[in-house]
Amino acid sequence: MLITSTSNERIKHARRVREGREPQLIFVEGERLVEECLRSGLTLSACFHTPEPGERMMALLSSMKEREVPCHPTQPQILASLSDTVTTQGLIVLAQRPVHALETALQGAAPLLLGLDRVQDPGNFGTLVRTAEAAGASGIIALSGCADAYAPKTLRSAMGSAFRLPIIVGLSTDDVADACTAHHLRVVAAAGAGEMAYYDYDWRQPTLLWLGNEARGLDEPLMASADVRLRIPLQAGVESLNVAAAGAAMLFEAVRQRLP
Amino acid sequence: MLITSTSNERIKHARRVREGREPQLIFVEGERLVEECLRSGLTLSACFHTPEPGERMMALLSSMKEREVPCHPTQPQILASLSDTVTTQGLIVLAQRPVHALETALQGAAPLLLGLDRVQDPGNFGTLVRTAEAAGASGIIALSGCADAYAPKTLRSAMGSAFRLPIIVGLSTDDVADACTAHHLRVVAAAGAGEMAYYDYDWRQPTLLWLGNEARGLDEPLMASADVRLRIPLQAGVESLNVAAAGAAMLFEAVRQRLP
Repeated sequence: MLITSTSNERIKHARRVREGREPQLIFVEGERLVEECLRSGLTLSACFHTPEPGERMMALLSSMKEREVPCHPTQPQILASLSDTVTTQGLIVLAQRPVHALETALQGAAPLLLGLDRVQDPGNFGTLVRTAEAAGASGIIALSGCADAYAPKTLRSAMGSAFRLPIIVGLSTDDVADACTAHHLRVVAAAGAGEMAYYDYDWRQPTLLWLGNEARGLDEPLMASADVRLRIPLQAGVESLNVAAAGAAMLFEAVRQRLP
Repeated sequence: MLITSTSNERIKHARRVREGREPQLIFVEGERLVEECLRSGLTLSACFHTPEPGERMMALLSSMKEREVPCHPTQPQILASLSDTVTTQGLIVLAQRPVHALETALQGAAPLLLGLDRVQDPGNFGTLVRTAEAAGASGIIALSGCADAYAPKTLRSAMGSAFRLPIIVGLSTDDVADACTAHHLRVVAAAGAGEMAYYDYDWRQPTLLWLGNEARGLDEPLMASADVRLRIPLQAGVESLNVAAAGAAMLFEAVRQRLP
Protein backbone atom coordinates (compact mmCIF):
# COMPACT_ATOMS: atom_id res chain seq x y z
CA MET A 1 0.00 0.00 0.00
CA LEU A 2 1.62 3.22 -1.20
CA ILE A 3 1.49 6.01 1.39
CA THR A 4 0.05 9.06 -0.34
CA SER A 5 -0.91 11.43 2.46
CA THR A 6 1.00 13.54 4.98
CA SER A 7 -1.80 12.87 7.45
CA ASN A 8 -1.13 9.12 7.37
CA GLU A 9 -0.63 8.07 11.02
CA ARG A 10 2.73 6.42 10.28
CA ILE A 11 4.01 9.59 8.61
CA LYS A 12 2.80 11.72 11.51
CA HIS A 13 4.63 9.40 13.91
CA ALA A 14 7.81 9.54 11.82
CA ARG A 15 7.65 13.34 11.85
CA ARG A 16 7.49 13.28 15.66
CA VAL A 17 10.60 11.08 15.66
CA ARG A 18 12.39 13.53 13.35
CA GLU A 19 11.56 16.37 15.72
CA GLY A 20 12.89 14.46 18.73
CA ARG A 21 9.47 14.04 20.30
CA GLU A 22 9.66 10.22 20.49
CA PRO A 23 12.73 9.80 22.68
CA GLN A 24 12.99 6.01 22.23
CA LEU A 25 13.46 6.32 18.46
CA ILE A 26 15.83 8.01 16.04
CA PHE A 27 15.34 9.20 12.47
CA VAL A 28 17.90 7.89 9.98
CA GLU A 29 17.92 9.15 6.42
CA GLY A 30 19.73 8.23 3.22
CA GLU A 31 21.18 4.99 1.87
CA ARG A 32 24.59 5.44 3.40
CA LEU A 33 23.45 6.12 6.96
CA VAL A 34 20.80 3.40 6.77
CA GLU A 35 23.50 0.95 5.66
CA GLU A 36 25.65 1.88 8.67
CA CYS A 37 22.62 1.65 10.93
CA LEU A 38 21.79 -1.86 9.67
CA ARG A 39 25.40 -2.94 10.05
CA SER A 40 25.44 -1.72 13.66
CA GLY A 41 22.63 -4.11 14.55
CA LEU A 42 20.22 -1.47 15.88
CA THR A 43 16.58 -2.58 15.92
CA LEU A 44 14.61 -0.84 13.18
CA SER A 45 10.93 -0.16 13.67
CA ALA A 46 9.87 1.22 10.29
CA CYS A 47 11.14 2.11 6.85
CA PHE A 48 9.70 4.59 4.33
CA HIS A 49 11.07 4.42 0.81
CA THR A 50 10.47 5.66 -2.68
CA PRO A 51 8.23 3.33 -4.74
CA GLU A 52 11.02 3.11 -7.34
CA PRO A 53 14.16 2.13 -5.43
CA GLY A 54 17.49 1.77 -7.24
CA GLU A 55 19.79 -1.22 -6.90
CA ARG A 56 21.53 -0.12 -3.70
CA MET A 57 18.23 0.64 -1.98
CA MET A 58 16.74 -2.68 -3.16
CA ALA A 59 19.54 -4.51 -1.36
CA LEU A 60 18.86 -2.53 1.82
CA LEU A 61 15.12 -3.18 1.60
CA SER A 62 15.61 -6.89 1.14
CA SER A 63 17.90 -6.98 4.17
CA MET A 64 15.27 -5.09 6.19
CA LYS A 65 12.48 -7.41 5.04
CA GLU A 66 14.56 -10.38 6.21
CA ARG A 67 14.61 -8.75 9.62
CA GLU A 68 10.84 -8.22 9.39
CA VAL A 69 11.11 -4.42 9.42
CA PRO A 70 7.82 -2.96 8.11
CA CYS A 71 8.76 -1.24 4.83
CA HIS A 72 6.32 1.33 3.43
CA PRO A 73 6.55 2.51 -0.17
CA THR A 74 5.80 6.22 0.03
CA GLN A 75 5.03 8.87 -2.58
CA PRO A 76 8.13 10.99 -3.33
CA GLN A 77 6.42 14.24 -2.30
CA ILE A 78 5.42 12.72 1.05
CA LEU A 79 9.01 11.55 1.59
CA ALA A 80 10.21 15.04 0.70
CA SER A 81 7.88 16.58 3.28
CA LEU A 82 9.13 14.12 5.90
CA SER A 83 12.81 14.56 5.03
CA ASP A 84 15.19 16.60 7.18
CA THR A 85 17.27 17.52 4.11
CA VAL A 86 16.66 19.75 1.10
CA THR A 87 16.90 16.93 -1.41
CA THR A 88 15.60 13.66 -0.02
CA GLN A 89 17.32 10.45 -1.01
CA GLY A 90 14.04 8.56 -0.80
CA LEU A 91 14.89 6.39 2.21
CA ILE A 92 14.01 7.02 5.86
CA VAL A 93 14.25 4.56 8.70
CA LEU A 94 13.12 4.74 12.32
CA ALA A 95 15.46 2.91 14.67
CA GLN A 96 15.72 2.27 18.36
CA ARG A 97 17.85 4.92 20.09
CA PRO A 98 21.22 3.41 21.10
CA VAL A 99 21.84 3.32 24.84
CA HIS A 100 25.33 2.73 26.19
CA ALA A 101 26.69 2.27 29.68
CA LEU A 102 29.88 4.06 30.65
CA GLU A 103 31.57 0.71 31.29
CA THR A 104 31.52 -0.17 27.58
CA ALA A 105 33.81 2.82 26.96
CA LEU A 106 36.26 1.90 29.72
CA GLN A 107 37.68 -1.27 28.19
CA GLY A 108 41.28 -1.67 27.12
CA ALA A 109 44.61 -0.85 28.69
CA ALA A 110 44.56 2.92 28.15
CA PRO A 111 41.12 4.18 27.19
CA LEU A 112 40.81 7.61 25.62
CA LEU A 113 37.42 9.22 26.24
CA LEU A 114 36.01 12.49 25.03
CA GLY A 115 33.69 14.43 27.36
CA LEU A 116 31.43 17.12 25.91
CA ASP A 117 29.92 19.91 28.02
CA ARG A 118 27.13 21.87 26.31
CA VAL A 119 28.46 21.40 22.75
CA GLN A 120 25.31 22.75 21.18
CA ASP A 121 25.86 22.76 17.46
CA PRO A 122 24.82 19.40 15.95
CA GLY A 123 27.45 19.81 13.21
CA ASN A 124 30.21 20.25 15.80
CA PHE A 125 28.89 17.38 17.90
CA GLY A 126 28.68 15.02 14.93
CA THR A 127 32.12 16.03 13.64
CA LEU A 128 33.58 15.31 17.09
CA VAL A 129 31.96 11.86 17.12
CA ARG A 130 33.45 11.10 13.69
CA THR A 131 36.87 12.46 14.71
CA ALA A 132 36.87 10.63 18.05
CA GLU A 133 36.14 7.28 16.44
CA ALA A 134 38.80 7.92 13.78
CA ALA A 135 41.33 8.68 16.53
CA GLY A 136 40.58 5.46 18.37
CA ALA A 137 38.66 6.94 21.27
CA SER A 138 36.57 4.39 23.14
CA GLY A 139 33.55 6.57 23.79
CA ILE A 140 31.97 9.97 24.26
CA ILE A 141 30.36 11.31 27.40
CA ALA A 142 27.78 13.98 26.55
CA LEU A 143 26.49 15.99 29.50
CA SER A 144 23.00 17.45 29.47
CA GLY A 145 22.92 20.67 27.44
CA CYS A 146 24.67 19.07 24.47
CA ALA A 147 23.02 18.69 21.08
CA ASP A 148 21.11 15.42 20.64
CA ALA A 149 23.73 12.84 19.63
CA TYR A 150 21.24 11.12 17.32
CA ALA A 151 19.36 14.06 15.80
CA PRO A 152 19.28 13.95 11.99
CA LYS A 153 21.84 16.74 11.56
CA THR A 154 24.21 15.24 14.15
CA LEU A 155 24.00 11.85 12.43
CA ARG A 156 24.84 13.42 9.05
CA SER A 157 27.97 15.03 10.49
CA ALA A 158 28.99 11.89 12.37
CA MET A 159 28.78 9.81 9.16
CA GLY A 160 28.02 6.46 10.74
CA SER A 161 30.40 6.85 13.68
CA ALA A 162 27.40 7.54 15.95
CA PHE A 163 26.28 3.93 15.31
CA ARG A 164 29.63 2.46 16.29
CA LEU A 165 31.15 4.62 19.02
CA PRO A 166 29.44 4.45 22.44
CA ILE A 167 27.91 7.83 23.28
CA ILE A 168 26.96 7.96 26.95
CA VAL A 169 24.33 10.42 28.11
CA GLY A 170 22.45 11.08 31.33
CA LEU A 171 25.47 11.06 33.66
CA SER A 172 26.11 13.72 36.28
CA THR A 173 29.59 15.21 36.58
CA ASP A 174 29.88 13.35 39.91
CA ASP A 175 29.13 10.02 38.17
CA VAL A 176 31.88 10.78 35.67
CA ALA A 177 34.37 11.85 38.34
CA ASP A 178 33.75 8.65 40.33
CA ALA A 179 34.25 6.47 37.25
CA CYS A 180 37.48 8.28 36.38
CA THR A 181 38.81 7.66 39.89
CA ALA A 182 37.75 4.01 39.83
CA HIS A 183 39.34 3.41 36.42
CA HIS A 184 42.45 5.55 37.02
CA LEU A 185 41.69 7.96 34.19
CA ARG A 186 43.52 11.28 34.07
CA VAL A 187 41.04 14.09 33.49
CA VAL A 188 42.23 16.88 31.19
CA ALA A 189 40.31 19.97 30.12
CA ALA A 190 40.75 22.04 26.96
CA ALA A 191 41.26 25.60 28.17
CA GLY A 192 42.39 28.72 26.34
CA ALA A 193 44.58 29.65 29.30
CA GLY A 194 45.56 26.10 30.32
CA GLU A 195 48.82 25.64 32.24
CA MET A 196 50.21 23.03 29.83
CA ALA A 197 50.45 22.93 26.02
CA TYR A 198 48.48 19.94 24.75
CA TYR A 199 51.51 18.38 23.06
CA ASP A 200 53.41 18.33 26.37
CA TYR A 201 50.76 16.10 27.94
CA ASP A 202 51.47 12.35 27.91
CA TRP A 203 48.49 11.03 25.97
CA ARG A 204 49.54 7.41 26.45
CA GLN A 205 47.87 7.58 29.87
CA PRO A 206 44.21 6.55 30.25
CA THR A 207 42.55 9.91 29.66
CA LEU A 208 39.23 11.71 29.62
CA LEU A 209 39.40 14.95 27.59
CA TRP A 210 36.72 17.58 28.29
CA LEU A 211 35.67 20.06 25.60
CA GLY A 212 33.20 22.84 26.31
CA ASN A 213 30.54 25.07 24.85
CA GLU A 214 31.21 26.87 21.55
CA ALA A 215 31.01 30.38 23.04
CA ARG A 216 31.63 29.94 26.75
CA GLY A 217 33.99 26.97 26.94
CA LEU A 218 33.90 24.53 29.83
CA ASP A 219 31.81 24.89 32.94
CA GLU A 220 33.98 26.38 35.72
CA PRO A 221 33.71 23.48 38.24
CA LEU A 222 34.64 20.95 35.51
CA MET A 223 37.59 23.11 34.53
CA ALA A 224 38.73 23.45 38.15
CA SER A 225 38.40 19.76 38.95
CA ALA A 226 40.46 18.54 35.98
CA ASP A 227 43.89 17.09 36.76
CA VAL A 228 45.40 19.43 34.17
CA ARG A 229 44.16 22.12 31.82
CA LEU A 230 45.59 21.97 28.30
CA ARG A 231 45.93 24.92 25.95
CA ILE A 232 46.40 24.89 22.20
CA PRO A 233 48.91 27.67 21.56
CA LEU A 234 47.36 30.05 19.05
CA GLN A 235 48.82 32.79 16.89
CA ALA A 236 48.45 36.24 18.47
CA GLY A 237 45.13 37.87 17.59
CA VAL A 238 43.16 34.61 17.41
CA GLU A 239 41.01 34.11 20.47
CA SER A 240 39.98 30.48 20.12
CA LEU A 241 39.48 27.54 17.80
CA ASN A 242 36.22 25.97 16.73
CA VAL A 243 35.53 23.18 19.25
CA ALA A 244 35.63 20.43 16.62
CA ALA A 245 38.96 21.76 15.30
CA ALA A 246 40.38 21.86 18.84
CA GLY A 247 39.20 18.30 19.40
CA ALA A 248 40.84 17.14 16.16
CA ALA A 249 44.17 18.73 17.04
CA MET A 250 44.21 17.14 20.53
CA LEU A 251 42.84 13.70 19.63
CA PHE A 252 45.29 13.26 16.76
CA GLU A 253 48.18 14.33 18.98
CA ALA A 254 47.07 11.41 21.16
CA VAL A 255 47.14 9.15 18.08
CA ARG A 256 50.67 10.30 17.25
CA GLN A 257 51.93 9.75 20.78
CA ARG A 258 50.29 6.32 21.00
CA LEU A 259 51.99 4.99 17.85
CA PRO A 260 53.62 1.65 18.59
CA MET B 1 15.97 59.42 8.82
CA LEU B 2 14.80 56.06 10.16
CA ILE B 3 14.50 53.39 7.42
CA THR B 4 11.04 51.87 7.76
CA SER B 5 10.47 49.96 4.53
CA THR B 6 11.90 46.82 2.95
CA SER B 7 11.51 48.47 -0.43
CA ASN B 8 13.92 51.27 0.52
CA GLU B 9 16.60 51.32 -2.22
CA ARG B 10 19.44 51.04 0.29
CA ILE B 11 17.85 47.98 1.88
CA LYS B 12 17.29 46.39 -1.53
CA HIS B 13 20.95 47.01 -2.36
CA ALA B 14 22.09 45.52 0.97
CA ARG B 15 19.99 42.43 0.30
CA ARG B 16 21.76 41.96 -3.04
CA VAL B 17 25.09 42.18 -1.21
CA ARG B 18 23.93 39.54 1.29
CA GLU B 19 23.01 37.24 -1.59
CA GLY B 20 26.42 37.69 -3.24
CA ARG B 21 24.99 39.60 -6.19
CA GLU B 22 27.23 42.66 -5.70
CA PRO B 23 30.66 41.06 -6.03
CA GLN B 24 32.61 44.15 -4.93
CA LEU B 25 30.95 44.22 -1.52
CA ILE B 26 30.55 41.92 1.46
CA PHE B 27 27.84 41.73 4.12
CA VAL B 28 29.12 41.87 7.70
CA GLU B 29 26.74 41.33 10.59
CA GLY B 30 26.95 41.65 14.36
CA GLU B 31 29.01 43.79 16.70
CA ARG B 32 31.89 41.38 16.98
CA LEU B 33 32.47 40.87 13.25
CA VAL B 34 31.96 44.58 12.53
CA GLU B 35 34.59 45.38 15.17
CA GLU B 36 37.06 43.00 13.48
CA CYS B 37 36.16 44.46 10.10
CA LEU B 38 36.82 48.02 11.30
CA ARG B 39 40.10 46.97 12.89
CA SER B 40 41.24 45.37 9.62
CA GLY B 41 40.97 48.70 7.83
CA LEU B 42 38.52 47.57 5.13
CA THR B 43 36.59 50.39 3.50
CA LEU B 44 32.97 50.41 4.65
CA SER B 45 30.29 51.72 2.33
CA ALA B 46 27.17 51.64 4.52
CA CYS B 47 25.92 50.72 7.97
CA PHE B 48 22.40 49.79 9.09
CA HIS B 49 21.74 49.76 12.80
CA THR B 50 18.98 49.57 15.35
CA PRO B 51 17.64 53.01 16.37
CA GLU B 52 18.46 52.12 19.99
CA PRO B 53 22.09 51.01 20.01
CA GLY B 54 23.72 49.85 23.23
CA GLU B 55 27.08 51.06 24.51
CA ARG B 56 29.28 48.73 22.44
CA MET B 57 27.39 49.58 19.24
CA MET B 58 27.53 53.31 20.03
CA ALA B 59 31.33 53.09 20.10
CA LEU B 60 31.33 51.31 16.74
CA LEU B 61 28.96 53.85 15.23
CA SER B 62 31.05 56.78 16.38
CA SER B 63 34.16 55.17 14.90
CA MET B 64 32.28 54.68 11.60
CA LYS B 65 31.02 58.26 11.58
CA GLU B 66 34.60 59.48 12.04
CA ARG B 67 35.43 57.57 8.87
CA GLU B 68 32.40 59.13 7.15
CA VAL B 69 30.60 55.83 6.70
CA PRO B 70 26.90 56.54 6.04
CA CYS B 71 25.06 55.10 9.07
CA HIS B 72 21.32 54.45 8.71
CA PRO B 73 19.11 53.89 11.75
CA THR B 74 16.72 51.13 10.66
CA GLN B 75 13.53 49.72 12.14
CA PRO B 76 14.21 46.43 13.97
CA GLN B 77 11.80 44.45 11.78
CA ILE B 78 13.53 45.75 8.63
CA LEU B 79 16.91 44.76 10.07
CA ALA B 80 15.48 41.33 10.90
CA SER B 81 14.30 40.89 7.31
CA LEU B 82 17.74 41.87 6.03
CA SER B 83 19.66 39.71 8.51
CA ASP B 84 21.28 36.44 7.50
CA THR B 85 20.76 35.02 11.00
CA VAL B 86 17.71 33.94 12.95
CA THR B 87 18.16 36.56 15.65
CA THR B 88 19.62 39.78 14.31
CA GLN B 89 22.05 41.70 16.50
CA GLY B 90 20.86 44.97 15.02
CA LEU B 91 24.05 45.88 13.16
CA ILE B 92 24.85 45.26 9.49
CA VAL B 93 27.70 46.77 7.53
CA LEU B 94 28.58 46.65 3.84
CA ALA B 95 32.31 46.60 3.21
CA GLN B 96 34.63 46.42 0.26
CA ARG B 97 35.54 42.82 -0.57
CA PRO B 98 39.18 42.16 0.41
CA VAL B 99 41.48 41.35 -2.50
CA HIS B 100 44.89 39.80 -1.86
CA ALA B 101 47.78 38.94 -4.14
CA LEU B 102 49.53 35.60 -3.68
CA GLU B 103 52.79 37.41 -2.92
CA THR B 104 51.41 38.73 0.38
CA ALA B 105 51.14 35.13 1.58
CA LEU B 106 54.66 34.18 0.54
CA GLN B 107 56.60 36.32 3.00
CA GLY B 108 58.81 34.92 5.74
CA ALA B 109 61.44 32.21 5.89
CA ALA B 110 59.13 29.19 5.77
CA PRO B 111 55.61 30.11 4.73
CA LEU B 112 52.83 27.63 5.41
CA LEU B 113 49.92 27.98 2.98
CA LEU B 114 46.62 26.18 2.86
CA GLY B 115 45.11 25.43 -0.57
CA LEU B 116 41.42 24.59 -0.83
CA ASP B 117 39.92 22.74 -3.79
CA ARG B 118 36.10 22.83 -3.98
CA VAL B 119 35.56 23.07 -0.20
CA GLN B 120 31.88 23.82 -0.59
CA ASP B 121 30.44 24.09 2.89
CA PRO B 122 30.75 27.67 4.18
CA GLY B 123 31.06 26.37 7.76
CA ASN B 124 34.00 24.14 6.83
CA PHE B 125 35.61 26.92 4.79
CA GLY B 126 35.27 29.45 7.61
CA THR B 127 36.50 26.99 10.24
CA LEU B 128 39.57 26.30 8.09
CA VAL B 129 40.28 30.04 7.79
CA ARG B 130 40.07 30.41 11.59
CA THR B 131 42.23 27.30 12.17
CA ALA B 132 44.80 28.33 9.56
CA GLU B 133 45.28 31.77 11.11
CA ALA B 134 45.50 30.23 14.59
CA ALA B 135 48.20 27.85 13.35
CA GLY B 136 50.28 30.66 11.87
CA ALA B 137 49.55 29.98 8.21
CA SER B 138 50.35 32.93 5.98
CA GLY B 139 47.43 32.61 3.61
CA ILE B 140 44.77 30.53 1.93
CA ILE B 141 44.45 29.79 -1.76
CA ALA B 142 40.83 29.04 -2.67
CA LEU B 143 40.31 27.59 -6.16
CA SER B 144 37.10 28.20 -8.03
CA GLY B 145 34.36 25.88 -6.83
CA CYS B 146 34.99 26.74 -3.17
CA ALA B 147 32.38 28.44 -0.98
CA ASP B 148 32.55 32.25 -1.05
CA ALA B 149 35.25 33.19 1.48
CA TYR B 150 33.30 36.29 2.52
CA ALA B 151 29.69 35.05 2.47
CA PRO B 152 27.86 35.76 5.74
CA LYS B 153 27.95 32.13 6.93
CA THR B 154 31.64 31.75 6.08
CA LEU B 155 32.45 34.96 7.97
CA ARG B 156 30.58 33.72 11.04
CA SER B 157 32.61 30.49 11.09
CA ALA B 158 35.89 32.31 10.43
CA MET B 159 35.27 34.64 13.40
CA GLY B 160 37.29 37.61 12.18
CA SER B 161 40.17 35.57 10.74
CA ALA B 162 38.82 36.24 7.23
CA PHE B 163 39.64 39.94 7.77
CA ARG B 164 43.23 39.25 8.79
CA LEU B 165 44.45 36.22 6.84
CA PRO B 166 45.02 36.76 3.10
CA ILE B 167 42.59 34.60 1.11
CA ILE B 168 43.63 34.44 -2.51
CA VAL B 169 41.07 33.60 -5.17
CA GLY B 170 41.00 33.55 -8.96
CA LEU B 171 44.24 31.61 -9.48
CA SER B 172 44.56 28.65 -11.83
CA THR B 173 46.34 25.52 -10.62
CA ASP B 174 49.15 26.42 -13.06
CA ASP B 175 49.53 29.86 -11.43
CA VAL B 176 49.84 28.16 -8.06
CA ALA B 177 52.30 25.54 -9.30
CA ASP B 178 54.51 28.25 -10.83
CA ALA B 179 54.51 30.28 -7.61
CA CYS B 180 55.40 27.19 -5.57
CA THR B 181 58.35 26.48 -7.85
CA ALA B 182 59.52 30.10 -7.76
CA HIS B 183 59.28 30.27 -3.96
CA HIS B 184 60.61 26.74 -3.29
CA LEU B 185 57.43 25.57 -1.59
CA ARG B 186 56.89 21.86 -1.09
CA VAL B 187 53.40 20.89 -2.22
CA VAL B 188 51.63 18.29 -0.08
CA ALA B 189 48.16 16.87 -0.56
CA ALA B 190 45.83 15.40 2.06
CA ALA B 191 44.89 11.97 0.73
CA GLY B 192 43.16 9.04 2.39
CA ALA B 193 45.63 6.66 0.77
CA GLY B 194 48.68 8.94 0.89
CA GLU B 195 52.12 7.33 0.91
CA MET B 196 53.30 9.16 4.06
CA ALA B 197 51.65 9.69 7.46
CA TYR B 198 51.25 13.41 8.04
CA TYR B 199 53.36 13.36 11.21
CA ASP B 200 56.32 11.91 9.29
CA TYR B 201 56.41 14.94 6.98
CA ASP B 202 58.86 17.71 7.92
CA TRP B 203 56.54 20.67 8.34
CA ARG B 204 59.42 23.08 8.98
CA GLN B 205 59.81 23.29 5.21
CA PRO B 206 58.00 26.03 3.25
CA THR B 207 54.80 24.17 2.45
CA LEU B 208 51.50 24.42 0.59
CA LEU B 209 48.93 21.93 1.93
CA TRP B 210 46.02 21.04 -0.38
CA LEU B 211 42.68 19.95 1.06
CA GLY B 212 39.84 18.82 -1.19
CA ASN B 213 36.10 18.57 -1.54
CA GLU B 214 34.01 17.20 1.34
CA ALA B 215 32.74 14.16 -0.56
CA ARG B 216 35.19 13.62 -3.40
CA GLY B 217 38.50 14.83 -1.97
CA LEU B 218 41.15 16.49 -4.12
CA ASP B 219 41.00 16.82 -7.87
CA GLU B 220 43.08 14.00 -9.42
CA PRO B 221 45.65 16.18 -11.28
CA LEU B 222 46.30 18.22 -8.10
CA MET B 223 46.75 15.00 -6.16
CA ALA B 224 49.12 13.56 -8.76
CA SER B 225 51.22 16.72 -9.06
CA ALA B 226 51.86 17.09 -5.31
CA ASP B 227 55.39 16.39 -4.09
CA VAL B 228 53.96 14.03 -1.48
CA ARG B 229 50.52 12.79 -0.47
CA LEU B 230 49.89 12.70 3.27
CA ARG B 231 47.43 10.41 5.01
CA ILE B 232 45.94 10.74 8.47
CA PRO B 233 45.92 7.20 9.83
CA LEU B 234 42.35 6.41 10.88
CA GLN B 235 40.88 3.67 13.03
CA ALA B 236 39.57 0.75 10.95
CA GLY B 237 35.97 1.29 9.84
CA VAL B 238 36.24 5.07 9.53
CA GLU B 239 36.47 6.18 5.93
CA SER B 240 37.52 9.80 6.29
CA LEU B 241 37.58 12.87 8.50
CA ASN B 242 35.62 16.05 8.08
CA VAL B 243 37.84 18.38 5.98
CA ALA B 244 38.08 21.02 8.72
CA ALA B 245 39.06 18.36 11.28
CA ALA B 246 41.71 16.98 8.90
CA GLY B 247 43.05 20.51 8.39
CA ALA B 248 43.22 21.10 12.15
CA ALA B 249 45.15 17.86 12.77
CA MET B 250 47.70 18.65 10.03
CA LEU B 251 48.12 22.39 10.65
CA PHE B 252 48.66 21.89 14.38
CA GLU B 253 51.19 19.14 13.72
CA ALA B 254 53.02 21.84 11.73
CA VAL B 255 52.76 24.16 14.77
CA ARG B 256 54.22 21.46 17.03
CA GLN B 257 57.11 20.72 14.67
CA ARG B 258 57.86 24.42 14.22
CA LEU B 259 58.21 25.12 17.96
CA PRO B 260 61.46 26.96 18.62
